[in-house]
Amino acid sequence: MFVDYTRESIGIVVENDFDRVRGTHVRKHLSSIYYYMFQDVHLTVVIGFGFLATFLKRYGNSSVVSTLLVVAITLQWATLCQGFFQMQRGKIHVSITNLVHADFATLAILISFGAVLDLTTPTQLIIMAICEILCFATNEYICLDILQISDVGVSMLVHVFAAYFGLTVSCVLRKNRPERETVSITLPTSDLFAVIGTMFLWLFWPTLNASLAQGDAQHRAVINTYYSLAASTVVTLAISLSSLLDNKRSYTVQIQNSALAGGVAIGTAADMMIYPFGAIIVGCFAGLVSVLGVVVFTPGINRIFGIRDTNGVHNLHGLPGLISAFVGAIAAAFATEKDYNYTLYRLFPARTPMVKTPDYWNLEHHVGNVVPGLARSALSQGAYQIAALGTTLAFAIFGGLITGFVLRLSLFNQRRRNNFINDEV
Amino acid sequence: MFVDYTRESIGIVVENDFDRVRGTHVRKHLSSIYYYMFQDVHLTVVIGFGFLATFLKRYGNSSVVSTLLVVAITLQWATLCQGFFQMQRGKIHVSITNLVHADFATLAILISFGAVLDLTTPTQLIIMAICEILCFATNEYICLDILQISDVGVSMLVHVFAAYFGLTVSCVLRKNRPERETVSITLPTSDLFAVIGTMFLWLFWPTLNASLAQGDAQHRAVINTYYSLAASTVVTLAISLSSLLDNKRSYTVQIQNSALAGGVAIGTAADMMIYPFGAIIVGCFAGLVSVLGVVVFTPGINRIFGIRDTNGVHNLHGLPGLISAFVGAIAAAFATEKDYNYTLYRLFPARTPMVKTPDYWNLEHHVGNVVPGLARSALSQGAYQIAALGTTLAFAIFGGLITGFVLRLSLFNQRRRNNFINDEV
Amino acid sequence: MFVDYTRESIGIVVENDFDRVRGTHVRKHLSSIYYYMFQDVHLTVVIGFGFLATFLKRYGNSSVVSTLLVVAITLQWATLCQGFFQMQRGKIHVSITNLVHADFATLAILISFGAVLDLTTPTQLIIMAICEILCFATNEYICLDILQISDVGVSMLVHVFAAYFGLTVSCVLRKNRPERETVSITLPTSDLFAVIGTMFLWLFWPTLNASLAQGDAQHRAVINTYYSLAASTVVTLAISLSSLLDNKRSYTVQIQNSALAGGVAIGTAADMMIYPFGAIIVGCFAGLVSVLGVVVFTPGINRIFGIRDTNGVHNLHGLPGLISAFVGAIAAAFATEKDYNYTLYRLFPARTPMVKTPDYWNLEHHVGNVVPGLARSALSQGAYQIAALGTTLAFAIFGGLITGFVLRLSLFNQRRRNNFINDEV
Repeated sequence: MFVDYTRESIGIVVENDFDRVRGTHVRKHLSSIYYYMFQDVHLTVVIGFGFLATFLKRYGNSSVVSTLLVVAITLQWATLCQGFFQMQRGKIHVSITNLVHADFATLAILISFGAVLDLTTPTQLIIMAICEILCFATNEYICLDILQISDVGVSMLVHVFAAYFGLTVSCVLRKNRPERETVSITLPTSDLFAVIGTMFLWLFWPTLNASLAQGDAQHRAVINTYYSLAASTVVTLAISLSSLLDNKRSYTVQIQNSALAGGVAIGTAADMMIYPFGAIIVGCFAGLVSVLGVVVFTPGINRIFGIRDTNGVHNLHGLPGLISAFVGAIAAAFATEKDYNYTLYRLFPARTPMVKTPDYWNLEHHVGNVVPGLARSALSQGAYQIAALGTTLAFAIFGGLITGFVLRLSLFNQRRRNNFINDEV
Repeated sequence: MFVDYTRESIGIVVENDFDRVRGTHVRKHLSSIYYYMFQDVHLTVVIGFGFLATFLKRYGNSSVVSTLLVVAITLQWATLCQGFFQMQRGKIHVSITNLVHADFATLAILISFGAVLDLTTPTQLIIMAICEILCFATNEYICLDILQISDVGVSMLVHVFAAYFGLTVSCVLRKNRPERETVSITLPTSDLFAVIGTMFLWLFWPTLNASLAQGDAQHRAVINTYYSLAASTVVTLAISLSSLLDNKRSYTVQIQNSALAGGVAIGTAADMMIYPFGAIIVGCFAGLVSVLGVVVFTPGINRIFGIRDTNGVHNLHGLPGLISAFVGAIAAAFATEKDYNYTLYRLFPARTPMVKTPDYWNLEHHVGNVVPGLARSALSQGAYQIAALGTTLAFAIFGGLITGFVLRLSLFNQRRRNNFINDEV
Repeated sequence: MFVDYTRESIGIVVENDFDRVRGTHVRKHLSSIYYYMFQDVHLTVVIGFGFLATFLKRYGNSSVVSTLLVVAITLQWATLCQGFFQMQRGKIHVSITNLVHADFATLAILISFGAVLDLTTPTQLIIMAICEILCFATNEYICLDILQISDVGVSMLVHVFAAYFGLTVSCVLRKNRPERETVSITLPTSDLFAVIGTMFLWLFWPTLNASLAQGDAQHRAVINTYYSLAASTVVTLAISLSSLLDNKRSYTVQIQNSALAGGVAIGTAADMMIYPFGAIIVGCFAGLVSVLGVVVFTPGINRIFGIRDTNGVHNLHGLPGLISAFVGAIAAAFATEKDYNYTLYRLFPARTPMVKTPDYWNLEHHVGNVVPGLARSALSQGAYQIAALGTTLAFAIFGGLITGFVLRLSLFNQRRRNNFINDEV
């Protein structure tokens, strides 16, 4: 009842469309690349993250069904939560871009699920999804609209947020509870599915990172992600195949996942001018850190906090997301108009000159239709990027704590069906 | 020999392309969104419907091969059958849009196959495909070109037609015949494939429904389908997981398929102004009806007509298709220029004013290049939509009867290889 | 360090983008169709060829991982090798088109791997990939930039090259070596994966062949490939299902692969004016030759050269690639400006008139911005196409010989881990 179509979805711009002189249909279809990106993000999030990467590895048919239910609820709920912050005249105006944003919100849910899946009932998953979307949408609004930061690959807003939210909930749920038998059914084909899932995400990651970029920034997002992923893959798989780890074969599958760390780590800076050279360095570093995480950090963290991060959420999303936030802040602090030309003001709208200053008139003269900004400096943009990381971590951890305690209420914590997620039942 | 390229495929519009001033390639590639839609429809129809949703569930390798043979024949035969109605100067002019139409014809074949697969030999499948395409193309021509109705998601033209055609053929083939042992091999991985197949269709359905729409109507088709599917998924999976059906666990897989009912039910009206609110109501209603169909109607129908609709063709395509036809008729009967702006005349070309009336000159003045129509009223457009449903049902049932009797001719009914579709043989 | 962005990826053309008068985003996203093609080629090459078609059939998890490592190395190495020939001011300028070219180089590697996979260690695969890319990039430069031939579907440059390169390496590696136990683990689900892999390639082949074409030629590439594939499928599957081969059931899977021969055979001529009629004839012929290859040629060749082409590389890529080269040469020798209009000069740039001739001024007047060519005649363009086939075969065979002997050096030929590719180890 709160939702309406946007201007592109109703016939207002139709006058242009009847121009048949050139015999083309280009102007009739205003959003081919947007639509394409939407369809691929939709596919990658649900098939890639939801099923191949997380669930099929370890669970079967009924888990998939209950997850599909959560996805269907989340897509609608995220439209509302994200939309309330953008309401105009009492209506949320929905375009295909909103569907992409709702898909990214679902991505956050699916990443967090990886950390808690062996602890929760389907009802708890639904409650957790509803709470997490609320925190997610608020944090997204604060970071993008108030702090005006740039995070094209959503490494901070989705990956960091979802990893620490999920781990906090997991920590709360596990505390003071007898270690119950966890579900660990492995289907006969599931190892192969896991590898195909990793491949699938590997191939679509350039689209994930580029889907919210525009124009020349979109080209850079694709190219940087492509090389960063290739670099992190070479590093992690070389380690995985080398004899260095001959006595740690049990980590092989998780190290394979680290091949994707390059995609997360380049996220925030994907559309900035870091060149293939920089992208490859970021990818190599992320691959190394992620492998170190699997072999060194995770066992330590698990011992200290009593978490058991079986799906490697921290190593694939948490750590590379933190790298991405810092890389993005550094790249933003060195961004100049000389390098970016006028694209600078589309990437960092807060850096646009304030209205009616000489700088503003100069830009207006050269570009036209400038939306006035805050005349923020490069360095302070970098500082704001770091501030957004702090905000994101705060929302993730406090939100996760509250959600964890809500889930522990006896109302949602009934054990009657606690093995539902087990296919055999 | 009857086929030629269209104007876009030969160099006639090439003069525009040499404009390199802007350094762009946009105008060289006239049909990016069309092409994208084509590739996705192609993928979804063949992989999603053909293999994951219907065949892999129950059959193996050799069934897939014989189906691929039928698809390859159908794509060529549909080009001719659909093309004969659109011939210009003795030639069928083939563009990528024709390939999309041929894919939808193949979709009809694959849906019908779901109803007869346990009764037929590969030769019979080929004969049936050839007959069905003939009926399908004639009905399509009558509905779209003579009755001038709107059916963007082809819910009537494909889903209703194919469901009732297939069920009629199944009814004829099963009549007066001893119940023979039917094939029901289940592969070890096939349950998982079935769920992934459902997911795959769920994710691509917005593209299926939007692929024949244009401009702002395409946006609406995507958005409406997205929310309708989400709504029907929540309804059907909530029923499936709830304790209401604890004693009917045997229906679980078919109820999961009902999650897709929202996509079929929104089909005809997908590009109309029904708003997310309307789309969600349609999706919920379709989910409910489809689940009722699985639990109540199908057992009854099977008893009365002696059909055995093992793949649930009636509940996934038949019933939601009927809902779609009525929703489309109602939305068409209330469509006003105020809501749709000039898009109205692209959705319902018959409603365009007749040539040289004052209305026509007024529209020509505002829009330009208007193709004169029949000045049909909103209410009569709604009536024509219902008339098209009647025509479709008539073609499906009479065509199915004739095809069924052709297939019973001893010529095509040889049992020598009747277990061919069984992998073990 | 050698790589920089192209003009589209930096803010130079951004002035146009701020035009918000029409409320559209079209001009902001300069390359929707290119990007779409890139993503699909990326997916098809790695998932379709790499995993489904070659590796999953016979090997498991660790083979996939070592292949992913080779792909990640190849993508980066191909960027450099192909880029060195196109350097400007000491920098390789990388756009999304370069990524597509790197993907095609990877395709060549994956095809060649099919011929040697049971003979090599992971280290040998990496060495072979590095050598092959060097030969591939040099041959590509000679054919496209010096001989100026047209090969839109890369049937010569990739399929013929990779097939004969791989077979030569296989021949050298097998010579004078005791027949060792080869790996032939078949996973339980792998037959089904093989069929789905074939389907996947079948569906995406129009995109593969059209991805390097432009404008109207892109339409033709899609349409011709679509019909050629349908024709070769009907021919090969009809043979496969017919009783002709009842006593040769062991060939069934390889004959199924021949359904794809139509896609390779139409490659070079895919964007030429051969009409659906011609495409269907080429497809039928390619299907027949490929099936004959499986049943007649391969057993003979294996006996004479001591090769064992277990993956059917010669029948799927070698023979249809040769057909494609001849079909392309014939079509090029008959190409006239009357049929192609000005597109002729985009397909065959060498046929553009030389600068400042009357023909040139005439074309300049009609089209504008003409890049002067060599005024080559249709017949001599056909001859150059054949010359390019000879060059390709020479590079493939000599390159393969040298690579084979390099791989036999004791340095790379250590047998310590020679069963690595075996999952059980």
